[in-house]
Amino acid sequence: MSQNNIKAILQKLTDDSISINEAETLLKKFYFEDIGYAHIDHHRSIRKGFPEVIFGQGKSSDQIIGIIEKMIDKDNIILATRVNKDKAENIQKKFNSVEYYEDAKLIQLKQKEPDVTGHGEILVISAGTSDIPVAKEAFLTAKAMGNKTKSIYDVGVAGIHRLFAHKDIIENASVIIAVAGMEGALPSVVAGLVKSPVIAVPTSIGYGTSFSGLTALFGMLNSCSSNVSVVNIDNGFGAGYMASAINHTGLSY
Amino acid sequence: MSQNNIKAILQKLTDDSISINEAETLLKKFYFEDIGYAHIDHHRSIRKGFPEVIFGQGKSSDQIIGIIEKMIDKDNIILATRVNKDKAENIQKKFNSVEYYEDAKLIQLKQKEPDVTGHGEILVISAGTSDIPVAKEAFLTAKAMGNKTKSIYDVGVAGIHRLFAHKDIIENASVIIAVAGMEGALPSVVAGLVKSPVIAVPTSIGYGTSFSGLTALFGMLNSCSSNVSVVNIDNGFGAGYMASAINHTGLSY
Amino acid sequence: MSQNNIKAILQKLTDDSISINEAETLLKKFYFEDIGYAHIDHHRSIRKGFPEVIFGQGKSSDQIIGIIEKMIDKDNIILATRVNKDKAENIQKKFNSVEYYEDAKLIQLKQKEPDVTGHGEILVISAGTSDIPVAKEAFLTAKAMGNKTKSIYDVGVAGIHRLFAHKDIIENASVIIAVAGMEGALPSVVAGLVKSPVIAVPTSIGYGTSFSGLTALFGMLNSCSSNVSVVNIDNGFGAGYMASAINHTGLSY
Amino acid sequence: MSQNNIKAILQKLTDDSISINEAETLLKKFYFEDIGYAHIDHHRSIRKGFPEVIFGQGKSSDQIIGIIEKMIDKDNIILATRVNKDKAENIQKKFNSVEYYEDAKLIQLKQKEPDVTGHGEILVISAGTSDIPVAKEAFLTAKAMGNKTKSIYDVGVAGIHRLFAHKDIIENASVIIAVAGMEGALPSVVAGLVKSPVIAVPTSIGYGTSFSGLTALFGMLNSCSSNVSVVNIDNGFGAGYMASAINHTGLSY
Amino acid sequence: MSQNNIKAILQKLTDDSISINEAETLLKKFYFEDIGYAHIDHHRSIRKGFPEVIFGQGKSSDQIIGIIEKMIDKDNIILATRVNKDKAENIQKKFNSVEYYEDAKLIQLKQKEPDVTGHGEILVISAGTSDIPVAKEAFLTAKAMGNKTKSIYDVGVAGIHRLFAHKDIIENASVIIAVAGMEGALPSVVAGLVKSPVIAVPTSIGYGTSFSGLTALFGMLNSCSSNVSVVNIDNGFGAGYMASAINHTGLSY
Amino acid sequence: MSQNNIKAILQKLTDDSISINEAETLLKKFYFEDIGYAHIDHHRSIRKGFPEVIFGQGKSSDQIIGIIEKMIDKDNIILATRVNKDKAENIQKKFNSVEYYEDAKLIQLKQKEPDVTGHGEILVISAGTSDIPVAKEAFLTAKAMGNKTKSIYDVGVAGIHRLFAHKDIIENASVIIAVAGMEGALPSVVAGLVKSPVIAVPTSIGYGTSFSGLTALFGMLNSCSSNVSVVNIDNGFGAGYMASAINHTGLSY
Amino acid sequence: MSQNNIKAILQKLTDDSISINEAETLLKKFYFEDIGYAHIDHHRSIRKGFPEVIFGQGKSSDQIIGIIEKMIDKDNIILATRVNKDKAENIQKKFNSVEYYEDAKLIQLKQKEPDVTGHGEILVISAGTSDIPVAKEAFLTAKAMGNKTKSIYDVGVAGIHRLFAHKDIIENASVIIAVAGMEGALPSVVAGLVKSPVIAVPTSIGYGTSFSGLTALFGMLNSCSSNVSVVNIDNGFGAGYMASAINHTGLSY
Amino acid sequence: MSQNNIKAILQKLTDDSISINEAETLLKKFYFEDIGYAHIDHHRSIRKGFPEVIFGQGKSSDQIIGIIEKMIDKDNIILATRVNKDKAENIQKKFNSVEYYEDAKLIQLKQKEPDVTGHGEILVISAGTSDIPVAKEAFLTAKAMGNKTKSIYDVGVAGIHRLFAHKDIIENASVIIAVAGMEGALPSVVAGLVKSPVIAVPTSIGYGTSFSGLTALFGMLNSCSSNVSVVNIDNGFGAGYMASAINHTGLSY
Repeated sequence: MSQNNIKAILQKLTDDSISINEAETLLKKFYFEDIGYAHIDHHRSIRKGFPEVIFGQGKSSDQIIGIIEKMIDKDNIILATRVNKDKAENIQKKFNSVEYYEDAKLIQLKQKEPDVTGHGEILVISAGTSDIPVAKEAFLTAKAMGNKTKSIYDVGVAGIHRLFAHKDIIENASVIIAVAGMEGALPSVVAGLVKSPVIAVPTSIGYGTSFSGLTALFGMLNSCSSNVSVVNIDNGFGAGYMASAINHTGLSY
Repeated sequence: MSQNNIKAILQKLTDDSISINEAETLLKKFYFEDIGYAHIDHHRSIRKGFPEVIFGQGKSSDQIIGIIEKMIDKDNIILATRVNKDKAENIQKKFNSVEYYEDAKLIQLKQKEPDVTGHGEILVISAGTSDIPVAKEAFLTAKAMGNKTKSIYDVGVAGIHRLFAHKDIIENASVIIAVAGMEGALPSVVAGLVKSPVIAVPTSIGYGTSFSGLTALFGMLNSCSSNVSVVNIDNGFGAGYMASAINHTGLSY
Repeated sequence: MSQNNIKAILQKLTDDSISINEAETLLKKFYFEDIGYAHIDHHRSIRKGFPEVIFGQGKSSDQIIGIIEKMIDKDNIILATRVNKDKAENIQKKFNSVEYYEDAKLIQLKQKEPDVTGHGEILVISAGTSDIPVAKEAFLTAKAMGNKTKSIYDVGVAGIHRLFAHKDIIENASVIIAVAGMEGALPSVVAGLVKSPVIAVPTSIGYGTSFSGLTALFGMLNSCSSNVSVVNIDNGFGAGYMASAINHTGLSY
Repeated sequence: MSQNNIKAILQKLTDDSISINEAETLLKKFYFEDIGYAHIDHHRSIRKGFPEVIFGQGKSSDQIIGIIEKMIDKDNIILATRVNKDKAENIQKKFNSVEYYEDAKLIQLKQKEPDVTGHGEILVISAGTSDIPVAKEAFLTAKAMGNKTKSIYDVGVAGIHRLFAHKDIIENASVIIAVAGMEGALPSVVAGLVKSPVIAVPTSIGYGTSFSGLTALFGMLNSCSSNVSVVNIDNGFGAGYMASAINHTGLSY
Repeated sequence: MSQNNIKAILQKLTDDSISINEAETLLKKFYFEDIGYAHIDHHRSIRKGFPEVIFGQGKSSDQIIGIIEKMIDKDNIILATRVNKDKAENIQKKFNSVEYYEDAKLIQLKQKEPDVTGHGEILVISAGTSDIPVAKEAFLTAKAMGNKTKSIYDVGVAGIHRLFAHKDIIENASVIIAVAGMEGALPSVVAGLVKSPVIAVPTSIGYGTSFSGLTALFGMLNSCSSNVSVVNIDNGFGAGYMASAINHTGLSY
Repeated sequence: MSQNNIKAILQKLTDDSISINEAETLLKKFYFEDIGYAHIDHHRSIRKGFPEVIFGQGKSSDQIIGIIEKMIDKDNIILATRVNKDKAENIQKKFNSVEYYEDAKLIQLKQKEPDVTGHGEILVISAGTSDIPVAKEAFLTAKAMGNKTKSIYDVGVAGIHRLFAHKDIIENASVIIAVAGMEGALPSVVAGLVKSPVIAVPTSIGYGTSFSGLTALFGMLNSCSSNVSVVNIDNGFGAGYMASAINHTGLSY
Repeated sequence: MSQNNIKAILQKLTDDSISINEAETLLKKFYFEDIGYAHIDHHRSIRKGFPEVIFGQGKSSDQIIGIIEKMIDKDNIILATRVNKDKAENIQKKFNSVEYYEDAKLIQLKQKEPDVTGHGEILVISAGTSDIPVAKEAFLTAKAMGNKTKSIYDVGVAGIHRLFAHKDIIENASVIIAVAGMEGALPSVVAGLVKSPVIAVPTSIGYGTSFSGLTALFGMLNSCSSNVSVVNIDNGFGAGYMASAINHTGLSY
Repeated sequence: MSQNNIKAILQKLTDDSISINEAETLLKKFYFEDIGYAHIDHHRSIRKGFPEVIFGQGKSSDQIIGIIEKMIDKDNIILATRVNKDKAENIQKKFNSVEYYEDAKLIQLKQKEPDVTGHGEILVISAGTSDIPVAKEAFLTAKAMGNKTKSIYDVGVAGIHRLFAHKDIIENASVIIAVAGMEGALPSVVAGLVKSPVIAVPTSIGYGTSFSGLTALFGMLNSCSSNVSVVNIDNGFGAGYMASAINHTGLSY
């Protein structure tokens, strides 16, 4: 969907070749498409630099397929998050080229490989083995959005030498995504070592007073390191998206 | 404090001109200074690109003065946050050149104006009149850290035309800090309009179920726009710091 | 159940044709019927303008059938909410004319179409695709209670142009029901555009700090627009009922 | 501020007598006025039928005076809520005709008495003596917005005969505002007696597990009567505003 | 288990016919029996007037059978609460005379009918149909402990005439158990009508902000009637037990 | 206020010597008196066996004096709770015979000593020195309502031999009020020793995770002893009132 | 894994027989092993006196087997906690000598019996039958770590004579682990009787306001006995581990 | 207070030189002393190895003086915690030798210096400058109870090199008390480095989502290091007491 088309409509309006009402109708179709259960935001690629991502949770596979069908010839890359295995298999039957990442519960449909356009490398780092699914969702999202990405898993603060062994990679990253459950201390320690911005992602891993990630979340918001900001619990997608936005700061894309 | 000095010590160690113990002692002094009630982190300028910022809350004016004295000939710019008027006046008596921003509760001591080094302009935008103190803390922090900054205040979502009137400025910013209390809806709406990363800052403004900013915080974490991450309630300083880190993504400084 | 009957009893009492005890017995039967597990409130049609609605959750299909049997020749329209598919099918076996709306989980048994009696049109508007079941429960309830109704779905604030495209419908509604999960910002934005009363319905859609709708609820209670009031999480029925009461303000019915 | 002026500007634009940029500038001034610490929403009278109300909490008396000065020749009636006695006295020194209601903490500046325009009478009813300040804020707001209003205080459910003694007034009201702290049971009982919509207002009255009004709030959201919706704790203003919007349903004003 | 046996042991000790160590051993066996996974408190009948009641939740049917076997020839009546149907059937296979009340999830094994010993009648009253299981647990417990009992179900405050129709029974009860979910207003209204003590039982019935009974609990603790005290959510057993203790105040049993 | 008067009115009505309207007016005056800021419930003595108790918190001394003036010639004993020292002194200036208990914050105005009418002795027992004010409020309330009362203070479970030293008194009480803050374990231990009903009163004593009494409250609701029910945090008055109701179970008074 | 090996590497470095880079590589392998989904912390035996314990929850049986394979020839004893029966059976198929404790959900693989090295005996004491699984996890962990251990189950405070019957064992223990759900009063009472440190373990046993163990946790944190500290809800493993650390205070091992 | 005295009483009882009643009376006096507002637990020195410590919060200086007077000739060392400056000065007027530590808010009255009796050194380590008062309370308590003690302040995880610079001291401590507010990550990192038990103390330092120490508390309970247990927020005294108990594990004292 190109910005030129919009200008063309506006031109026609000022040329009096169409009325305001006609212009409105044209622009509305341009902006979004109403398919009953969803208003697909076609304008998003222009406005945000990346097409709308389908939030799979609570949508049937038929609904997801319906949305993909409307997007498939307009967008180079389509992502759907929080898609379980059953739904994924239904979707893959319809679209052969759909890739499914089971642990990240993420579907990807690429017309072509995205260009790598960001400033540097986005590093995804996780505290425990159980945090890996969230970390992978972040990793895949950042990659799909045109970024160089790397990951290090299971380097929590209880055996802090495991973290320090990767100090070079950590210091070289342009943006870091730090994923942790339980007490959520990893982002503070990591951010204390670097200048670059750190996106902290709490996970729902733990029991008792981990409160399904709330303790990690609050710990991260209280980080004594200041180059940290936080996304919702288990929101690997949001972290990857925000990291990509950061990695493109000041660039046109 | 220069990185060269560290290399010099290491060189001496490999030259056998000093022992490991001696090297350790030298490096420790280099890293931080223990003044009893505080370990001042002199290494921070090297590691993080900006000197340690003094968290004024819960420190006496004497303690703050003591820390400033240790930093004053090592750092070009010193910030102290959450300093009330009484403490500020005591500190200004000691250091004439200290500037005090009363609504932001922030002290600044500049040897020289910071160079503007970031990618673009950081925009601070607030929902209500009462959110201004937090917004100003963010604004001043970002400015002190070498960024071009701009602000728009009192443009909450209940009269959304006031926000849209500033659409050009919003779309041109490289990083946006969106400050809001009550229901905290501003960052979602703003982030929906742009590609750039948005730092959401909940404020403790409101009553009843605003829960001193918790409702705004949770609303922001649930933003349906994905280019949003969040800092602690009323943490204008952290937002400004993070925005600066983002605005310097991929740059050496 | 007519108000005349009550007056008749009272007349008999003052005529001394019945005793106080007899009058009490007659009136009690009139008011409600005790069927062991329920006191059916037959008086409600008179007092409230609409018969008692069956809350299906936690009742067996036999219990629901039992209650319908007692109501069926007294009331023109019977609603049962929160009825799952299995129960609905059992009930439909017993009463052929029962209509079942699966996504809204609502059962309706109409003797005749309700008269449209309210002031204007009730508009149901939802933020996301997953909010539709709650929105439909509101829509169907308002319609059954004698109101003109309309709906717009999936117009959340992250792509606010989708909402503004429907501005005419929004401004013409006499009452608006705004349904949203996650950060629940939709009612604030909508209410900022109109004079008419807005009923905000939080939904349990979301994850992490959405807290099953609590964040949306608190956000809505903190709305910076003042023509907003709120019902319980996922309470589409209550929203539809309240909207109908509002749409009949000052009317006799 | 008249709607005609806006049409005039639009006419000029289609007549080519002004450019789009000029039209934009004119309209912007029309919509709101930026006085640094506030964007005054002059457009609100047109859009919402009542001028912007000043939220006094967290604003200095100078700021409130500044805003009143900008509104005074545009609006017939100006309200400021949550104004304590000290601020009120400062404001009264500046504007002689300002009325101050100390228990409701409300300021009113009337050019002329508002016309009574709503459908019927708004009844404000409170459970306890300590709930009166919130009830009065609701009462005065509803009255200022052009409604007939009445009030009954201290009729909580522990001595329910006190409530039933006022049954006629209750049944005749077109809208009811029910104000209660502690367990907040009053709105349920009241709404069970009538057809008309009931706005429930929880107050922060109580101790221990009243949680500053939260228990009352949650009780009201769980009301087993369906013609109830709820506003924020202690939000008498919002209740009065919403009640007025309801009382004007379907009317032009 | 008789108090005389204890005196006999003590007599032997003062007679020097047994040592302190021997007395201790005898008394310990007397007081409780250690069967590995449980210390059965045989002393409870003497101390508390009623044998230990088996809390069935989290115990296997074998464990419950094992405990019953140890109690069966010492106690006239054995209760086990929170026993689901499967466990109940296993237990009934072992002990033919076990009665099972499915909705109350309660097992009872009576050697003989308990004597009615309390002051008056215990009335169990519930707000909704879904509160009946908890109400029945209270009813059966109070009955098993030697009290006259009566019940009234589904008389919530939204149709308050249904409650008032039973005013005589309510006023005659010596103790009232009031069971309610959602907003939990029933105990306040009931207690406002009588002198007798009211035990309020919150139930987990409801959705959204009912918080599984927490809202009802807090509402009841905030009751503006003072002859109310509260037990844990869904704790019908505790309410029946406490009501029985109250109904025996000042009596020997 | 005598029950005979009510019957007299009803007799007149059936004699046709007064109309229904006249009867209503007479009965209304009888039931309560409306003094603007309060509806005084004169009917309470008849209905509840004790006159309305004035909740002093949030009322001015003038308001309390106003209410006392209306009650003073109708009731033998008047209590006002939560009255601070300043207000108490104002009230004592007006009514010489008012007694003030400063630690319990309770005012008492006795025309004559109440008769002791309950079954047995009410024992008030507190865990710590700081719980004494709440314990005393309970003690004085129970005494004013016609009960024999006793108290034991500072016998918490950390030195449990102090509690057991008073075992005889504990076992002889007909009702026990157990007052405790912090972990609130006292009622469980005490109730485990006796048959009689135990009213547990959590206090707001403690810090950190005592959550102003919430932890004690929840602990008490989870008591593994079943002859326990609970009142609101710091609600000594309610505990004394409920204990008196219990101590009069089955008695006419 | 021996400490000597590390010294050997360091010696080589000072001998210049290896470079700093080579030393780093050697040391890294020594410290931990990266097997993709986990960084196994081989250094832990040296640093902490006990090998890394596998947290089974959220790991597949294949992942657990993979980790055991890497540890089996380095460590004398391997523990895995929170392993359900299905996983345990898979693991036992692979390693015959694995012992599985079903109620404690714990796997143990011993090359040789651990030496008993602590100061005294660790006593595990539980309040109820349902707390036994957590108590057993603590018991087995402490035993595996080289401690004499004993246990007493079902001795809650509602029948406190059952607890006091074991007073000798309690007073002789060097460390006590007290496990309790519901109101969690056991640790306070036990700690009041002894000098030795008490580790309190809240369990998720209970219903309603037990909040899955939170009430027990907060009660324990508020213990009026001071020789108490607390671990996470249901964290039997942590309690056993901490008790072992305490029982080895001041010893080399 | 010596254990011999108790034996003497028991001897007399078995000698029949005193009756059971007389023995009881003697033993009761021995155990505690009832001074009206407090039951002083004189038995505590025997049972617990340290006399009762006075909790100053909520006690008047007169009450504290009264308790000290009863203890002063029985105990070598008396502590009172949470004593503010005003009270301390009153107490010092009465007892000259009282020492007052203002930042720790702790009073100490020593007849003689306590013997150092524990296994090793207790190290108190704090994350920030503002945590020092809590850390000092722990330090002074542990010292008063007969332990070698050391402290390191302001070594939080955001500049982790400051912590590692003290690694030798950390590794040599027999017990560590780790004090931290905000995200509370320090205990996890410290415990990961050592074998010895770590007592984690959350402090109420922070703002926003630090929730007055709750976030730190929950983070510590979720520590991924297992040699950690936790005390209440700001409970420096409890941490020092527990550390001393641990440091005396297996010793007689």
